[in-house]
Amino acid sequence: MASAVNPIGQSSTVMAGRPLHLHADRFFDSDPAIRNVARALYEETRDLPLVCPHGHVDPSLLAENAPFPEPSALLIIPDHYIFRMLHSQGVRMEDVGVPTRDGSAVETDPRIIWQRVADFWYLFRGTPSGAWLAHELHDVFGVRERLDSDSAQRIYDEIAEKLTSPEFLPRALFEQFRIEMLATTDSAVDSLPHHQKIRSSSWSYGRQRVIPSFRPDTLFRIAQHAAWSKEVRALEVVTSESITSCDALLSALAERRQFFLSMGATATDHGVMEPYTAELSPADAERLFQRALSGEATPADQRQFEAHMLMQMARMSVEDGLVMQLHPGSLRDHNQAMFEHFGPDKGADIPLATEYTRNLRPLLNRFGSNPRFRMVLFTLDESTYSRELAPLAGHYPALRLGPPWWFHDSIEGNRRYREQVSETAGIYNTAGFNDDTRAFCSIPARHDLARRMDANWIGGLVARHIVDMDDARDMARALAVDLARETYRFPTPPA
Amino acid sequence: MASAVNPIGQSSTVMAGRPLHLHADRFFDSDPAIRNVARALYEETRDLPLVCPHGHVDPSLLAENAPFPEPSALLIIPDHYIFRMLHSQGVRMEDVGVPTRDGSAVETDPRIIWQRVADFWYLFRGTPSGAWLAHELHDVFGVRERLDSDSAQRIYDEIAEKLTSPEFLPRALFEQFRIEMLATTDSAVDSLPHHQKIRSSSWSYGRQRVIPSFRPDTLFRIAQHAAWSKEVRALEVVTSESITSCDALLSALAERRQFFLSMGATATDHGVMEPYTAELSPADAERLFQRALSGEATPADQRQFEAHMLMQMARMSVEDGLVMQLHPGSLRDHNQAMFEHFGPDKGADIPLATEYTRNLRPLLNRFGSNPRFRMVLFTLDESTYSRELAPLAGHYPALRLGPPWWFHDSIEGNRRYREQVSETAGIYNTAGFNDDTRAFCSIPARHDLARRMDANWIGGLVARHIVDMDDARDMARALAVDLARETYRFPTPPA
Amino acid sequence: MASAVNPIGQSSTVMAGRPLHLHADRFFDSDPAIRNVARALYEETRDLPLVCPHGHVDPSLLAENAPFPEPSALLIIPDHYIFRMLHSQGVRMEDVGVPTRDGSAVETDPRIIWQRVADFWYLFRGTPSGAWLAHELHDVFGVRERLDSDSAQRIYDEIAEKLTSPEFLPRALFEQFRIEMLATTDSAVDSLPHHQKIRSSSWSYGRQRVIPSFRPDTLFRIAQHAAWSKEVRALEVVTSESITSCDALLSALAERRQFFLSMGATATDHGVMEPYTAELSPADAERLFQRALSGEATPADQRQFEAHMLMQMARMSVEDGLVMQLHPGSLRDHNQAMFEHFGPDKGADIPLATEYTRNLRPLLNRFGSNPRFRMVLFTLDESTYSRELAPLAGHYPALRLGPPWWFHDSIEGNRRYREQVSETAGIYNTAGFNDDTRAFCSIPARHDLARRMDANWIGGLVARHIVDMDDARDMARALAVDLARETYRFPTPPA
Repeated sequence: MASAVNPIGQSSTVMAGRPLHLHADRFFDSDPAIRNVARALYEETRDLPLVCPHGHVDPSLLAENAPFPEPSALLIIPDHYIFRMLHSQGVRMEDVGVPTRDGSAVETDPRIIWQRVADFWYLFRGTPSGAWLAHELHDVFGVRERLDSDSAQRIYDEIAEKLTSPEFLPRALFEQFRIEMLATTDSAVDSLPHHQKIRSSSWSYGRQRVIPSFRPDTLFRIAQHAAWSKEVRALEVVTSESITSCDALLSALAERRQFFLSMGATATDHGVMEPYTAELSPADAERLFQRALSGEATPADQRQFEAHMLMQMARMSVEDGLVMQLHPGSLRDHNQAMFEHFGPDKGADIPLATEYTRNLRPLLNRFGSNPRFRMVLFTLDESTYSRELAPLAGHYPALRLGPPWWFHDSIEGNRRYREQVSETAGIYNTAGFNDDTRAFCSIPARHDLARRMDANWIGGLVARHIVDMDDARDMARALAVDLARETYRFPTPPA
Repeated sequence: MASAVNPIGQSSTVMAGRPLHLHADRFFDSDPAIRNVARALYEETRDLPLVCPHGHVDPSLLAENAPFPEPSALLIIPDHYIFRMLHSQGVRMEDVGVPTRDGSAVETDPRIIWQRVADFWYLFRGTPSGAWLAHELHDVFGVRERLDSDSAQRIYDEIAEKLTSPEFLPRALFEQFRIEMLATTDSAVDSLPHHQKIRSSSWSYGRQRVIPSFRPDTLFRIAQHAAWSKEVRALEVVTSESITSCDALLSALAERRQFFLSMGATATDHGVMEPYTAELSPADAERLFQRALSGEATPADQRQFEAHMLMQMARMSVEDGLVMQLHPGSLRDHNQAMFEHFGPDKGADIPLATEYTRNLRPLLNRFGSNPRFRMVLFTLDESTYSRELAPLAGHYPALRLGPPWWFHDSIEGNRRYREQVSETAGIYNTAGFNDDTRAFCSIPARHDLARRMDANWIGGLVARHIVDMDDARDMARALAVDLARETYRFPTPPA
Repeated sequence: MASAVNPIGQSSTVMAGRPLHLHADRFFDSDPAIRNVARALYEETRDLPLVCPHGHVDPSLLAENAPFPEPSALLIIPDHYIFRMLHSQGVRMEDVGVPTRDGSAVETDPRIIWQRVADFWYLFRGTPSGAWLAHELHDVFGVRERLDSDSAQRIYDEIAEKLTSPEFLPRALFEQFRIEMLATTDSAVDSLPHHQKIRSSSWSYGRQRVIPSFRPDTLFRIAQHAAWSKEVRALEVVTSESITSCDALLSALAERRQFFLSMGATATDHGVMEPYTAELSPADAERLFQRALSGEATPADQRQFEAHMLMQMARMSVEDGLVMQLHPGSLRDHNQAMFEHFGPDKGADIPLATEYTRNLRPLLNRFGSNPRFRMVLFTLDESTYSRELAPLAGHYPALRLGPPWWFHDSIEGNRRYREQVSETAGIYNTAGFNDDTRAFCSIPARHDLARRMDANWIGGLVARHIVDMDDARDMARALAVDLARETYRFPTPPA
């Protein structure tokens, strides 16, 4: 298989046969005064367990514990971080095996897919995806040569072979990764069969460690009639209730929250285009619900309904103690043709400027000082870190800021987050780290990068005599595990 | 008194008995090429007098010159930077002695309050409040052990004792701090009795150094009828004029400005939610005024009226030479329940995204090129530094950018300001430093941090061969004192 | 001639007779681990040819090849980067020779103008203009003393003398600068006589290297009736067609694009206040066109028409292959009085917050995945780098991000761009460097600063073990020349 060279002569095979080496000091500032402290702090956090309170791992992986398929199906085809970059440079999604909605043909030879990604691997220079995959290859799969056009097939073979051995079964990796707790993200109507199976399995290490999170978004999107109706019907089935009023919807949601709680959930999650919150009168809410039922709800109706339902979800969190996560500001499926051809989550979700100060005021005024309430707030709009989010989190007791999200979960993104949030909010109004990934094998890589960057940021504080080494150690441990555990109200893990 | 430990096991007493030490190179980059230049520049500015053209010190302090009360009343209870952080972590405001509006009970034992703050002092790691208080304790009060649960009462005793001695009287500290000029912020209807008393006192050092600033905001907020009416009545009393028309209001304002000028004022100050400016016809302005009188003015009316009055204030500044400060973009009292229970300025003011380019165009088109006009513009929205503020200040002769404001008056905030403003506006379109504080004892700490960060920024320019050492010295002095003096049209200080 | 001193005692002559020296490591981080790599990478790119795909050089310079006039007319009077800074500090535009629209008197003695700029040269400390002019004086004109009040006239003499020699003729400098390709920016109705003259000249080096770019903005600004009508009439003349319908306008535009193609153009350029795109029905577009003809088009009409015409331009780019550049977000001529007195491009264009995600969706949905389409997108709103632009460029194959534009083409601006764009978009979705200048002699200085900063950024990646040195070399060359060549579809340059 010949290697590809792009139009400007760049290629992944700058020089064949380069070893894959993860430098012990990678990502740390090169200034020795910072690097040495960062290294010392990182040494204290690197081997701490991985606390994973928000992510998108498919629980069936751990329920079935079947061997992972071959390398492309494991590492490439489900990872929109990877195929979106190839797509941005003109590689057709079909050519890296991304399945189409209508079942039309895509590349099915995993070796061709793997080679194609390797040929274009230079695109990931300086990106977190590049860093994460290098970590996965090296630390999870023991690969010792760099991925490029020349090495692609050898590396494919090496991984493929390993995937057949028991140490690479999902549960074995889960234990090897030292995952303390892993929360998945699940539809409100999900009966959680995979979680059920894990909990009733003989897997003693993992039984209490894989928990669901309650995500009811579809039930609030009343302007998307077909999807909404389908979800309401599923909710009727799973609750055995008829849902013909807003009150009935709220009752069913409360019931489902109880079910999720019984399955170990500690949190809900909510994705909205804007974080608008507003309390409607019961009559107004009912009117919107009826318009939804009749298929007449407009986007403006949906905006009001979502705002109202966020208030209801906060109210229920006060009652049942589930931590409320809010992920606003993504315009999903920006590329309509791609959405129609390939479906959602294909790397075409684009952030929007997001307003928090006015939008969250109703919710925070009503619940933000309630000691039973806890909200974890995320953003894709970094301009809000210092302007809105840190001042809000530095005031309201219920509010914690989630870690840098999605595009910003990176070396420089972490730096901007710490520098722009911490002086106003302190670190104790932040929620620790989330890996937020559906790529199971990337979990250790993501925590490692975050721990390195946190150690490096604190190292910079020590090197500038802003905090001393004793405080620094406390802070590093808080960022690595303690804040995540406490924010998400995780139980003490099994010994 | 037992020390507190928070839910994740962090506490202020990581190790008891740690000495409090302010490192000579604190806040400087650890890279020696930068640090050495920064240190040399700072050595040249550290002992320059403190020029304080904008702040919120209570002038009665210096008029009465009474001993400061005990440590909690001096350093904790009035400082919303401190109690907001404790509040954000669930400490009740009452428990740190913040007085309620209805007089309901709050903690009154200052030692308990002091202990509580000490117990939670770890929250301030990496924050400017933490750095400022360390500086105050060390340099103003001679404390040599770190504040924590263990040391709290000893430090309380040490400060309490010092506060009884003559060297810690307000005027003595004012002189010891080497304050060259201190501008307070005062209501337009204030008869300035404390300033009168200072000016007619025998305090030779301070008589000419404590000046008021003219802040008429309440008179422009016509939608807040009760507060507005009260302020208008106070204006009638203080001017002995009946104010039943917009023209009468303008006349009274002009008269008050003359009074403030006679008391040494060189500036006005204006706080608005958005920096919208627009010239109304006299008839339209009058119509709004009459709606205000009758209690019918809406928020939309107020927006127009404020926009118009900013234009009038600029016009008067051209006439009387008072420098016009504009502080836009804060949504005050975001937490309604807290506002009702505790009042304003309790750490619940949250910034908004702010637009300057279109909003200020009417004002800058009319007055921005007038050599008699001077405007100092502030922001809480750092995204405007490079996008709007630096280009505006790099064009309009009347415009100077105020220093990083409020949340952004910090180590990283200063860095972002210099890096994002200076390449387009240069340093000479900036206004030097403001401490902007109501915490009198924090004034030296705030100037020291700013001088260190300015020296460090210039040190980075020298280390990268962007400016040479001769220019760097000139720049450091300009940022430390000269730009503030010149921007605010301060008289040459008494020898 | 006496030197000037500003009100705070700062002057350009801190110390007379300082040598002008460009440090070999200027702009690089002072940390040796970064600096040493940066220097090594820069050594590999510093002598590569200059690829100039977007700028505003007057083609008559190279068509006529007349000697440049004296120093002030060459370096000061046409450079709004320089005179806007003096204006911001109260220097009248007339006093630095900026011509008025009505022909009223301005300073005409070039030595007085030159001295005035030198007197105020301290204003440019820490600015890119300061760095660029130092480079021009040193490298282009061989000046070896720093510009200040004392040296001004000596330096004037030195440059004036050089300008008379053949090596300083425009074409000689073009060759000395090693310009590989220079695209100018030209009105859609321009018959390109200067380009014609260059192409038919005996100048073998430059004949194929000076190309036009197609900029039809005025034809889309239907609310500015006088300017629009004049441009439409010019279009009628140059195409010998009557333009009385929108279809006729589109035909004429297509014809002009063919003419520009025949003259070597590879790109179009579009300046709009907001990047709004929307497809109108032919009937709606025609209705707007007729309102324009009758002088009744409103700003709202123009907004729709521009949105529609951007769609048409994208469609034509798919057909004819011209790369489409989009420069949105500047509020031109913010200072109305200055615009009336001096005209456009006088340093009073102020950026606006800019929205891309929603605005560009129609255009990118229709053309963004078309392999024949290429769009280069710019911004003046740095908050969009990580929020909108990098995610868009990291998805749509047709999209490339232009380099930091205008105010942001600076040392810190380059750093922010690389740090905020690269982790999401990678470097291969960026367009390399544009000098974007009308100051011909500043071209090498601007490329040099960009190459240094790019080398320094990559140096930081190497020093932190994010990329290795082999990849770093590849990346540095891509940023210096290859990405610009490929993005703008430049032909292989003549040997």
